[in-house]
Amino acid sequence: MSSLKENYKRLLEQSKELAVVQSAGAILQWDMETKMPPKGVELKSQQLAFLEKTAHQLLTNPEVGKVLDAIQKDSGYDSLDKVQKRNVYLARKAYDEATKLPEKLVVDIVKQQTVGVNVWKKAKAAKDWKLFMPELVKIKDLTEKKAELLMDIKGAKTPYDALIDDFEPKMTADNITRIFDGMRKGLTKVMDKVLEHQNVDAGFLSRPVPVAVQEKIGEQMADFILYDIKSENAGGRIDTTEHPFTTGYYTDVRITTNYHENQFMSSIYSILHEGGHGLYEQGLPMKWMYQPIGTSASYGIHESMSRFIENMVGRSSEFWTYYLPLLKKLTGDTFKDIDREQMLHAANYVAPSKIRIEADEVTYGMHIIIRFEIERDLFSGKVEVSELPEVWNQKYMDYLGVEILNDSEGVMQDTHWASGLFGYFPSYALGNIYDGVWLTKLDKDLPNWKGDVEKGVYKNIKAWMTENVYGYANLYDPEDLVKHVTGTGLVVEPFIEYLDDKFRGIYGY
Amino acid sequence: MSSLKENYKRLLEQSKELAVVQSAGAILQWDMETKMPPKGVELKSQQLAFLEKTAHQLLTNPEVGKVLDAIQKDSGYDSLDKVQKRNVYLARKAYDEATKLPEKLVVDIVKQQTVGVNVWKKAKAAKDWKLFMPELVKIKDLTEKKAELLMDIKGAKTPYDALIDDFEPKMTADNITRIFDGMRKGLTKVMDKVLEHQNVDAGFLSRPVPVAVQEKIGEQMADFILYDIKSENAGGRIDTTEHPFTTGYYTDVRITTNYHENQFMSSIYSILHEGGHGLYEQGLPMKWMYQPIGTSASYGIHESMSRFIENMVGRSSEFWTYYLPLLKKLTGDTFKDIDREQMLHAANYVAPSKIRIEADEVTYGMHIIIRFEIERDLFSGKVEVSELPEVWNQKYMDYLGVEILNDSEGVMQDTHWASGLFGYFPSYALGNIYDGVWLTKLDKDLPNWKGDVEKGVYKNIKAWMTENVYGYANLYDPEDLVKHVTGTGLVVEPFIEYLDDKFRGIYGY
Repeated sequence: MSSLKENYKRLLEQSKELAVVQSAGAILQWDMETKMPPKGVELKSQQLAFLEKTAHQLLTNPEVGKVLDAIQKDSGYDSLDKVQKRNVYLARKAYDEATKLPEKLVVDIVKQQTVGVNVWKKAKAAKDWKLFMPELVKIKDLTEKKAELLMDIKGAKTPYDALIDDFEPKMTADNITRIFDGMRKGLTKVMDKVLEHQNVDAGFLSRPVPVAVQEKIGEQMADFILYDIKSENAGGRIDTTEHPFTTGYYTDVRITTNYHENQFMSSIYSILHEGGHGLYEQGLPMKWMYQPIGTSASYGIHESMSRFIENMVGRSSEFWTYYLPLLKKLTGDTFKDIDREQMLHAANYVAPSKIRIEADEVTYGMHIIIRFEIERDLFSGKVEVSELPEVWNQKYMDYLGVEILNDSEGVMQDTHWASGLFGYFPSYALGNIYDGVWLTKLDKDLPNWKGDVEKGVYKNIKAWMTENVYGYANLYDPEDLVKHVTGTGLVVEPFIEYLDDKFRGIYGY
Repeated sequence: MSSLKENYKRLLEQSKELAVVQSAGAILQWDMETKMPPKGVELKSQQLAFLEKTAHQLLTNPEVGKVLDAIQKDSGYDSLDKVQKRNVYLARKAYDEATKLPEKLVVDIVKQQTVGVNVWKKAKAAKDWKLFMPELVKIKDLTEKKAELLMDIKGAKTPYDALIDDFEPKMTADNITRIFDGMRKGLTKVMDKVLEHQNVDAGFLSRPVPVAVQEKIGEQMADFILYDIKSENAGGRIDTTEHPFTTGYYTDVRITTNYHENQFMSSIYSILHEGGHGLYEQGLPMKWMYQPIGTSASYGIHESMSRFIENMVGRSSEFWTYYLPLLKKLTGDTFKDIDREQMLHAANYVAPSKIRIEADEVTYGMHIIIRFEIERDLFSGKVEVSELPEVWNQKYMDYLGVEILNDSEGVMQDTHWASGLFGYFPSYALGNIYDGVWLTKLDKDLPNWKGDVEKGVYKNIKAWMTENVYGYANLYDPEDLVKHVTGTGLVVEPFIEYLDDKFRGIYGY
C-alpha cells in the first residue's frame, strides 16, 4: 500500500473513532433529557464530560496533524478523488480549529457560559437587564477573542464571519445582509397583505386532545413522512421532552416532542419538524458513515429540511385535505364541526408577536433578521451591549409593529446570547431561503408532489430529498450545495414567491 | 502534601475515571436492551467496544501500577486507614489481574465466546450435543489457561478457585463443597416433606392480567420496597426487556422486568428480585462513590439481597396478607375467589424440574449444586467435557428425581458455559445461604420485621440492610463481611431452617 493510501486509511480510522465517541455522547445526552432518573444528573455530567474530553483529545491528537500533513504534502495528493479531498479538507479544518484555541480561552468560555446562563435565568425572571448586561459583555468579548483567532483558518474577513462559519461554512455577514434585506421587504409585503385579509377563528385549536390520542397522532405523522419508529429495521424513535429536539447518527436517530393537551397542533408540527431533521440524518449515505463527509452540510441546510416538512408540506392545503379525515377519526367528536378550510386557516394564522419560538411562518423570519442585524452591528462596533434593549425594541416596532414592554419579552427572551451562541440565528432563516430554492427544483422534477401529499404519499418526496440533499451529506459547503443541485445561487425570491402564492391561495387576496 | 497523600489522591482520580467510563457503558448497554431502534445495533456495538477498550486502557494504565507501587512501598503506608488500604488492595488486585493476561489470550477468549454462543444456539435448537461439544472443549481450555495465569495473584490453590474468585472473592471449591453438601441434605429433606404434603391448585395464576395493570402492580411493588422511580429525587426506573436485569451506578440504577399476560406473578417477582439488586447498588455509601471500595461485595452477596426481597419477603405469608387486597383492587374480578392461603400456596408451589430459571425456592439450590459439582470435577480432571451429558442426567435423576430427555433441556439449557462463565453458578446458591445468615441477625435486631411487611412497611428493613450490608460496600470479602456483621461463619443451617419453618408453616407438616 502506498503511504498516501495508508495515511488516508489512518485518517478515516481516526475519524471513525471520533464519530463513535460523539455518537455515544449523543445517546447519553438523549438519555439525560428523556429517561434518566433525576438523581443521576451529577453522574451523567461526569459521563458527558469524559466523552467530551475524549472527543477533544481525538480531535486535537497530534497524530491527526501528522497524518494530514503527510497526505497534503504527498506528491500523489492530486490523485485523490473529490470525496477523499473533501474528507481531508474537513478533517484539516476541524483539526486546525480545535488546535488553534488556547486551552485557557476554551475553559474561560465554558465557565462564562455557565455563569452567563445562570445569571440570564435570574435576570429574565426579574426582568432586570442591568443584572444580565455585564455577563453578556464578558461572553461577547470572549467569543470575539475566539473568533479573531479562528478568522485566519476559516478565511473569514471579520470575527463575526468566523462565528457564522461555525454554523454556515463560508457564509458571510455581507451575503446574509444582502439576502435578508430582500427577505425583509418580501416578508413585509406578504405580512401586510395577510393581515389585511385574514379573518381566522383559531380558538378550536385549544380544544383538549388527550395525550394518548396525541401520541397516536404522532405515530401517524411519523408514518406519513416515513420516519420509521416501528418496523424491525427502524432507526428512529419518538420521546417526550420539554423542548423538542433531534439527535443521533445515521442508523439511530431519535426525535422528541411535547404534548400539550390544549394545543394539539404543537406536537403535530414538532414531530414534522424534528422528523425532517431526523430524515436528513438517517438519509446520509451509508458509504460515508464515520467519515468527516458523513454529516449534514450546515445548520441552515438542516433547518431547510425540517421546515420543508413542517411548513411546505405540513401547513399546506394538500396536507389538511389528506389528514383532516384521519384526525377526525382519532379525536371522536372534537373537531366534527371543523372543515378543511378552517383547519388550514388556523394552521396558517399569521400574527406579529414578541416571541420568536411562537412565531408563524411569515413573521418568523423577521425575528431572525432583527437578531442578525443586532449581532452584526455588535461585532462591527456599531452597537454596544448596553444599547441592545433600545435597538431591539426599536427594530421590533419598525419591522413587526409590536411594542416590547420589558426586556424579558425582548432582548432576554432567548438563552442563545447568554451562552455565547453568536452567528447561529441566521441559520434559522437561511433554512427558509434554501427551501425556496429547493422548491423551484422540486416543482420541476416532481410536478405532482403536492398531489402525492394529498394522497398521504411521501415516498417520492423522500426519494427526491435523498437524491438532492441527504445524499450529498457534507460534500459541499451549503451555498455550493445549493448551486450544484439547483444551478441557482442563494436568492430569496423563490421563498417569498412561495409564501405569497400560498397565502394568496389561502386568503384569496 | 506528602507524596503518599498525593499518590493516594491520584489513585482515586484514576479510579473515578474508570468508574465513570464503566457507568457510561452500563447506560449504553441498557439503551441497547431497552430503547435503541433496532437498526442502531452495529453503531451501538462500536460505542460499547470503544468504551470497553477505554476502560481496559484505564485499568491497565502503567501509571496506575506506578502509583500503586509508590503507595505500597511508601514508609508511611501503615498510616493509611482501613478504607484507604482496602482501596489500595482492590485497585492492586484489579490492576494485576488485568495486566497479567496476554492480549492474545484475551482476544482468543472473546472470539471463542462469540463462536461458542453461536454454535450453542444452533446446537440447542437442534438438540445436538455433538455439535456443541468441540466448542465447549475450546472455551473450557482457554478459560483454564486464563485461570492458571491468575492463580498466583488471586492466591488460589486451583484454577477453578481462581475462576470462583472472579465472582466470590476468596471463596474456594473446598469451602463450597462443604456448604453445598449440607445444603443438598437440607434441601432434600424439605423437598421430600413438601412434596408429600402440598396440595396446590395454582391454575389461577394463569388468569390473564392486562399488561397495563401489571405495570401498575409493578409500580406498587417499587413503592412497597422503596425503590423510587417517581419522586423528584428518584434514582431508579423500570423498563421492559425479555430477560429482567439490573444495571447502573449509585444515583442512577435501573431495573427491567417482563410482562406476561397469563403469568402475572412473573413480573411481581422480577421486580422484587431486580429491585433487591437495585436497592443494593443505590444503597452503597455516597462517600465511596467512584472509589474501588464503592461496589458490591460479590455476586453472591448481591444475589442474597435480591433473593431476600423476592423470597423471604415477597413469598412470605405476611406479604400476601398485605398485598392480596391491593391486588384485588387493581385486577377487578380476576382473583375475587382467591384467598390469601391459595395465593401463598401458589406462590410457593414446589416442583422438581429440569430448567433452573423456572425452579422454585426449594429446588433451585439443587440445580446450582449440580452445576457446581460438574464444574469442579471438570476442572479437577475427574470429568471430561465429553462425559457431561451423562453426568448431568445422572445427577438430575439422583438429586431431583427428574429424567432429562435430551441435552437441550439438560446440559445445554444455559448459555453460561458456552460463553466461558465457569465459577459463576455457585454465587446463585451462596446468595440463599448468605440470606440464612442475614436472617438470623435480622430476626434478632428487628424482631417485628415480618409485622412490618404485613403492614406494607419496608423502611425499617431497608434501613437494616443499609446498615448491615449496603453500607459496607466492598470493604470486606464476602465471607469476612458476613462474619464481621453477624459474628457467624458461612453456615447453611439457618437457610435450611428458614425453609423448613416456612414450608412447615404453609403446609402444616
